[in-house]
Amino acid sequence: MSVSFADVEAAAARIAGHAVVTPLLESPALSERIGARVLLKLETLQRVGAFKFRGAYNRLAQLTPDEKTRGVVAFSSGNHAQGVALAARLLGMPALIVMPADAPAIKVAATRGYGAEIRLYDRLTESREAIAAEIAKERSAVVVPAFDDPHIIAGQGTVGLEMVRQAEALGARLDSVTVPLSGGGLISGVATAVKALSPRTAVIGVEPAAFDDTLQSLQKGERVTIKPTGRSLCDALESPFPGEITFPIMLKTVADVALVTDAEVAEAMRYAFATLKLVVEPGGAAGLAALLAGKVKRFGDGAMGVILSGGNVDRELFAQAIRGEI
Amino acid sequence: MSVSFADVEAAAARIAGHAVVTPLLESPALSERIGARVLLKLETLQRVGAFKFRGAYNRLAQLTPDEKTRGVVAFSSGNHAQGVALAARLLGMPALIVMPADAPAIKVAATRGYGAEIRLYDRLTESREAIAAEIAKERSAVVVPAFDDPHIIAGQGTVGLEMVRQAEALGARLDSVTVPLSGGGLISGVATAVKALSPRTAVIGVEPAAFDDTLQSLQKGERVTIKPTGRSLCDALESPFPGEITFPIMLKTVADVALVTDAEVAEAMRYAFATLKLVVEPGGAAGLAALLAGKVKRFGDGAMGVILSGGNVDRELFAQAIRGEI
Repeated sequence: MSVSFADVEAAAARIAGHAVVTPLLESPALSERIGARVLLKLETLQRVGAFKFRGAYNRLAQLTPDEKTRGVVAFSSGNHAQGVALAARLLGMPALIVMPADAPAIKVAATRGYGAEIRLYDRLTESREAIAAEIAKERSAVVVPAFDDPHIIAGQGTVGLEMVRQAEALGARLDSVTVPLSGGGLISGVATAVKALSPRTAVIGVEPAAFDDTLQSLQKGERVTIKPTGRSLCDALESPFPGEITFPIMLKTVADVALVTDAEVAEAMRYAFATLKLVVEPGGAAGLAALLAGKVKRFGDGAMGVILSGGNVDRELFAQAIRGEI
Repeated sequence: MSVSFADVEAAAARIAGHAVVTPLLESPALSERIGARVLLKLETLQRVGAFKFRGAYNRLAQLTPDEKTRGVVAFSSGNHAQGVALAARLLGMPALIVMPADAPAIKVAATRGYGAEIRLYDRLTESREAIAAEIAKERSAVVVPAFDDPHIIAGQGTVGLEMVRQAEALGARLDSVTVPLSGGGLISGVATAVKALSPRTAVIGVEPAAFDDTLQSLQKGERVTIKPTGRSLCDALESPFPGEITFPIMLKTVADVALVTDAEVAEAMRYAFATLKLVVEPGGAAGLAALLAGKVKRFGDGAMGVILSGGNVDRELFAQAIRGEI
């Protein structure tokens, strides 16, 4: 079960008119600081404030009429939850989302705001997979995975499709595309599109240093599950293992993985606020953090693409970040 | 001395490759809330974080070699200061900026960061015009006005030129363009472009309620100077009178002026943070504030364009705004 470029193209057609074609922005100040032309893909400006809407809509749009009637179940700490909730509302089907009780309040409130039913669980004592499976069984509902699903991956891949075409329109040659990395849904979709359209563009992942499961897995050539020793500031990037479907794609396509610390991520959020005038959540800023910290390898003297993947951050955390308290 | 559409087109050619062609963004969440297609022109993502770079660059690029050697002087509470400072650096000329001692720290620091010399003055006891004139005389430098200058107006007009073309590319019919309003530089430039390209599009200004000089002037048919009774949250919109050059243009082209309170502006900043994921300064959010408060008149059932004109806001003020403390 893999994902082809044709799947990404079909996803693009399916989400057209529903998802936002987000801007690919050049900030001269950032390009000057880095010493290369930097092009930022602003998925913070996507519906629900993150790229997750693309994959969720692409998945839900392909359910059968019967499945649509019974609805969907998903588990997610936040952005996937919102993506599924909004896609379900737009496509007229019920959605129940299993969310950790300590998920960012803004993400829980927004998910509820899109009309989804919420079931909170305790991250330490309960299994979200078990809860979701049980509810799905009761309702004969379809479980929508956060990343390990070919339709989800193809949907996220439309970010890469747009980037390559927008870069072309700007007359830029993309040497690399840098992508925040958790379970691998975004990067494997993006890589599928980028490698098809621009084979010489390097695809680079960025993980929190405390969640380096994908780096370890790629080095070992097989999926490694890590035992997290704590939380990351990047609440959206805490997957302890790469996906079963995403991993082989990453193994074939990912040129490098950079690791970032919480301090580097907070610095990137401050930079985005003060210089770029953008609200970026911690996980969404991981790629920018690696870039600013000099951790993104150069693959030529052309343009460096970076995905800002989400902007859903609680106001208290954001206030702390811009004040330098993190 | 007026400004023609040809002047705006010439300015567009002059700033091409130097200014950012900022995105015209549709937020489905905002459009749904307003009940109309809303298109946001993100001048927050412009160089120096505000539209002011456009006019400043257009003005400075037209100085003679002799004038360039002697440099420029400007007075400004912030965004014009940064625009002139950066344009001067890019064009290789010295710049001195007269700024009030109580200007937002982020604006003073950024202006200095672009290499300009700064002269702070006391807003209550000193005249910035007199200080600037004296320095300009000493140095034989050119004074660059913030808004009452045809080249500045033509430069700001490129925002309107881009908006009309970007809206066309999106297949949208612009019923109106809503613009934050202080001395009138932005709105008169934008109106010059918009009325030439799309005569049926209404141009709407938004002033702080405490600085309603332009509304009063337009109602009276002549320039009125108000006596401000206090400050506005919108530090960028505190001009007590419309410009000599901008006023006749506004008289001919502006369909309506809405007034917004500080509370409405703070609410718009919160909305921009939480829903749009954009950092907008108070003055830059005035148009959005009027829209959210239901104060922007409808001129049809097509699209409503709104300019977010700047994003230079101190972190403390921003933290207060998003926490609901303003």
